[in-house]
Amino acid sequence: MTEYRTLRVALLGAGAVGSQVADLLLKHGDELADRAGATLELAGIAVRDLDAKRDVDLPRELFTTDAETLIVGSDIVIELMGGIEPARTQVLHAIASGADVVTANKALLATHGSEVFEAADQVGAEVYYEAAAAGAIPIIRPLRDSLAGDRVVRIMGIVNGTTNYILDRMDTEGADFADVLAQAQELGYAEADPTADVEGYDAAQKAAILASLAFHTTVPLDAVHREGITSVDAAMIESARHAGYVIKLLAVCERLTAADGSESISVRVYPALVDRSHPLASVHGANNAVFVQAEAAGDLMFYGAGAGGVQTASAVLGDVVSAARRHIAGGVGVGESTRANLPAVPIGHVITRYQITLEVDDKPGVLATVAGILSEGRVSIATVEQTVIEADENTQTGGSARLVIGTHKAREQDLSETVERLAASGVVERVVSVLRVEGN
Amino acid sequence: MTEYRTLRVALLGAGAVGSQVADLLLKHGDELADRAGATLELAGIAVRDLDAKRDVDLPRELFTTDAETLIVGSDIVIELMGGIEPARTQVLHAIASGADVVTANKALLATHGSEVFEAADQVGAEVYYEAAAAGAIPIIRPLRDSLAGDRVVRIMGIVNGTTNYILDRMDTEGADFADVLAQAQELGYAEADPTADVEGYDAAQKAAILASLAFHTTVPLDAVHREGITSVDAAMIESARHAGYVIKLLAVCERLTAADGSESISVRVYPALVDRSHPLASVHGANNAVFVQAEAAGDLMFYGAGAGGVQTASAVLGDVVSAARRHIAGGVGVGESTRANLPAVPIGHVITRYQITLEVDDKPGVLATVAGILSEGRVSIATVEQTVIEADENTQTGGSARLVIGTHKAREQDLSETVERLAASGVVERVVSVLRVEGN
Repeated sequence: MTEYRTLRVALLGAGAVGSQVADLLLKHGDELADRAGATLELAGIAVRDLDAKRDVDLPRELFTTDAETLIVGSDIVIELMGGIEPARTQVLHAIASGADVVTANKALLATHGSEVFEAADQVGAEVYYEAAAAGAIPIIRPLRDSLAGDRVVRIMGIVNGTTNYILDRMDTEGADFADVLAQAQELGYAEADPTADVEGYDAAQKAAILASLAFHTTVPLDAVHREGITSVDAAMIESARHAGYVIKLLAVCERLTAADGSESISVRVYPALVDRSHPLASVHGANNAVFVQAEAAGDLMFYGAGAGGVQTASAVLGDVVSAARRHIAGGVGVGESTRANLPAVPIGHVITRYQITLEVDDKPGVLATVAGILSEGRVSIATVEQTVIEADENTQTGGSARLVIGTHKAREQDLSETVERLAASGVVERVVSVLRVEGN
Repeated sequence: MTEYRTLRVALLGAGAVGSQVADLLLKHGDELADRAGATLELAGIAVRDLDAKRDVDLPRELFTTDAETLIVGSDIVIELMGGIEPARTQVLHAIASGADVVTANKALLATHGSEVFEAADQVGAEVYYEAAAAGAIPIIRPLRDSLAGDRVVRIMGIVNGTTNYILDRMDTEGADFADVLAQAQELGYAEADPTADVEGYDAAQKAAILASLAFHTTVPLDAVHREGITSVDAAMIESARHAGYVIKLLAVCERLTAADGSESISVRVYPALVDRSHPLASVHGANNAVFVQAEAAGDLMFYGAGAGGVQTASAVLGDVVSAARRHIAGGVGVGESTRANLPAVPIGHVITRYQITLEVDDKPGVLATVAGILSEGRVSIATVEQTVIEADENTQTGGSARLVIGTHKAREQDLSETVERLAASGVVERVVSVLRVEGN
């Protein structure tokens, strides 16, 4: 066996991911040393409660409640506590102590990323976060390094496993949101409080991280437009299927170019219609995928497990090996490139296609009225399908009709104003749904 | 604009990829400088023929036929000549001159990789080759860095666009190999001499590169078992479809663990049956995809364009930016980790599933004889389907039957010996095909 220099590794947190990271560090030590060119010594594991139940049996003597002392003298600090505090304080403490940091903490990076990266830049430390964007899927290095010579035009990501699991089961079984959510909670695919997932908060944090990397721009979390999937019902899924679409919760990060050549970006999370022939449509269950369109490289897709303790641990350990190599090789960190500094536009400026589903009076002239309102609103119709849903048995008139309108590309603000005008027009009984269509 | 240090970049070769690399370097100079932290000055382009027609208009004064002089004093040398010589000599010259090397040359790396990497190690230079394994798809960094803390179990790659295009069209159109090949040649998807693609040589080179990275082991090209797709005909494709499969030319890199815990690897390229529900089955046209199974990360897939001038240029430029960052940051290179040094086993040791298609006499006892030979040969039958193909009109006997046998996992050597015994058994008229089934 080769003799390597020893690097001291501190682990903060021993939850689903942390306990797997500790286990793999201890089990595969020799192999990791060969990869890293350094022996990785797990110096300790900081936890809140020494007696909490862990997913994996780990040597008791490694545990401590004193994160601050553990960090001092460590070469690499792995932060897997989650949440903003005390994670933020400990990460900044680690950087100030001269350690490189590996974190899977998307909430921290999406809200305090600039603070953390600037602190690291000032002392020449590096912050690794492959596990923060799409779980086990290697997406950070491809975006930061492999595509560094290219220009990313658009990212469409399925970056939340819980919501993909729910939407996928609704799609395959025709089941309703509440039923599938309850089952997902039973099976452990959804938390007892599912808000972070189903309302799109988790996806929005990941979108901010991906957009920052892809566009070399600091994207604050509040620049991300966010809608969840709680309003998606079985009828919407069925109607999407009928039109050749599937509904996915997408994180869309887009580069926009104005007529004068100036650039901006849009970052948004919402349930969207995706064509069934699109690679993203075949991402099933709790899997994640990130579809990237770049000017030169064309279409790329990265697919895999977006969550899970041991899967995410793989991404964390890859970062640990990278940090170790950097420690051994010397050299200062690359730092995050945010020189492009593109402004993020509000959702109203976004241009995409829409599917509008309306319940209208089934009488002559209604379609003309609806078409007129759309045209006035600068929303151009691509497809229309009208079906009678509730005709009066005697007169065959006076019932309702369902109108599904597919639009050409329109500006979100024009679209939403037009939908308001439709709702107030007198001929529209109900706006059933308005969904964006993504992916060309 | 920020003032950066200038790095001198030499380009060798101005073919489909090289001319795009030069074009993008010149067009996106400012943006690349921000990414790299250095101004990338294209010092010159070495070509054989100054007057050859190029895909892109490039400043004439950049061209030279004197690669050797151009290389001296360059910080980064981009080798896009292809082939073994003079590429090998120039790459070694560049390394000796103190430059980092970026190359897309799979033939060079698959045959002289060790020589090149050792030369680089000795002087602390780095060799980047993202474009050599799967065109524009970022696969090198994920394997080398993101999965460095994990253990890759298996890679199944569609790494040759020409053959995937041909097989895909045969599958969708029921067309024959020769017809589709001719069309692919007309459309520019296949070379005038298609041998490197259709005989699997190109895929075998990429398999050697992927396996070396994934298993931290030097994999010589002659350790790669290679079969092409020229024997795949419309009937085989139809029969595969009938059984729920699609035929893909796969590069399979596999870690094998013996009963005593010792490990070895198998690297092989052949047309294989892939279940239609597998993510690789939906890789259409000239696209490539690399499916990776790792112990912790689980299943990952990387999808994109496997070839094309501008697409591949994206991967090359990503490497150029990485090389520039390393130059600016200082620090020695990581080098390729080949400490695992696992032995590669011959194809006979491989264990997989098979589909055997036979034409047999349609008379009593034949199935029993066939089943007996399989059983003696330690090949266990999973499924059998027999269809009469040519019965005698008067007696309804004495005709032929087609027997499609799906096996459980079997050792390749047992399987091939068994097939020989079947062929000589007297009841088998013809062995129509023997195909491996990959993907679990």
